[in-house]
Amino acid sequence: MTDTTPSTPAGTFVSAELYAQVQQFYARQMGLLDDGRPDEWAGTFTEDAVFQEASRLDEPLRGRDAIRASSRARKERLDGDKLDFRHWLGMLDVRPQDDGSLRTRSYALAMRIPRGGALDIFASVVCHDHLVQVDGTWQVRHRDLHHDGSGRD
Amino acid sequence: MTDTTPSTPAGTFVSAELYAQVQQFYARQMGLLDDGRPDEWAGTFTEDAVFQEASRLDEPLRGRDAIRASSRARKERLDGDKLDFRHWLGMLDVRPQDDGSLRTRSYALAMRIPRGGALDIFASVVCHDHLVQVDGTWQVRHRDLHHDGSGRD
Amino acid sequence: MTDTTPSTPAGTFVSAELYAQVQQFYARQMGLLDDGRPDEWAGTFTEDAVFQEASRLDEPLRGRDAIRASSRARKERLDGDKLDFRHWLGMLDVRPQDDGSLRTRSYALAMRIPRGGALDIFASVVCHDHLVQVDGTWQVRHRDLHHDGSGRD
Repeated sequence: MTDTTPSTPAGTFVSAELYAQVQQFYARQMGLLDDGRPDEWAGTFTEDAVFQEASRLDEPLRGRDAIRASSRARKERLDGDKLDFRHWLGMLDVRPQDDGSLRTRSYALAMRIPRGGALDIFASVVCHDHLVQVDGTWQVRHRDLHHDGSGRD
Repeated sequence: MTDTTPSTPAGTFVSAELYAQVQQFYARQMGLLDDGRPDEWAGTFTEDAVFQEASRLDEPLRGRDAIRASSRARKERLDGDKLDFRHWLGMLDVRPQDDGSLRTRSYALAMRIPRGGALDIFASVVCHDHLVQVDGTWQVRHRDLHHDGSGRD
Repeated sequence: MTDTTPSTPAGTFVSAELYAQVQQFYARQMGLLDDGRPDEWAGTFTEDAVFQEASRLDEPLRGRDAIRASSRARKERLDGDKLDFRHWLGMLDVRPQDDGSLRTRSYALAMRIPRGGALDIFASVVCHDHLVQVDGTWQVRHRDLHHDGSGRD
């Protein structure tokens, strides 16, 4: 399975309704991560979701439970650090698949701001997601993060 | 009054028309700020608007006149400095309220570029707005800015 | 010809369909640049496109062929450098013109990430485009880039 093969041709744009839905989905999903709400964050992934981050994780996280556990551990680690985190997502491209799911590509910037310290935008990431519709909203079934500068193709 | 209590449930997205309107509103509003047009900037707030920035302002600015005066003073201060300023707003979440107004949350990045100098992205801010419809466009009735790293909750 | 004179009044927003189309156009166009696909990048400009970047180029690039040649040369220069490049575009404002074409203004951030090195967001740019519809998609007929801090008005 590859996240990079589009189903729709490059000249075809998705409807504004779909595009705005996906934009809103990501705004809220990143908000949950930044607000330190690991359980709700995990709830934006399917039960069988795969979370892949080749430059950081030896093995992908497999399943919502693993994503939740990883996210809770991250929160505990960071809570003592007095840091604000912000994740921006932009340059969103959405390709509908024949089965009604979506493949998206977007850019992400990760930044942290220590208490009383300077803004540090420390990572640029390309995010390939496979989104499926569940109960009237979207969930991530597969996420592949590529950290720029990591040398991985 | 709190800007953080949503009226719509988290799984509900606003229509593309509304979402695109608010995106365009912010693109133009930030453009007025960056282009140094304090009077037009002030015109994007309601007459009775409150502008709150806990980490910067001792007291909120109350009313469009105060916002205009503050913005004119900022422009005079900066005009001598030969700086370009840019404000980016992203990760927009829009929650319609029962009275037809909107509560929005967004992230903002503030950056400056001195003549011949390097780009300096110096602040990450979370913006909570209360928007009301006036004469077919949107105006800010209440803005609360939280500077990341300021330690304020 | 000036790219800065809007045809629509400031209080008028374009439809969500049009706004989402232009957002998607730019996401894909910047993706082609970042992915090092100069021929497809050139294909997003009209045959007679003019590409103007006052602080970098002595003379505008005139025509798609010149844009393609310049983009191929950039790719060859960069391929040896083991750099990832990302271009973000945001704060998009769209003004429809009487002839059905569009004038857009947007902010852009240019960043590079060396293999194993730190993210460097090195330029903030204001982009004024003139877009025309060709074969069901949009193409750039005129692009004017203003680098912040360059001192050019």
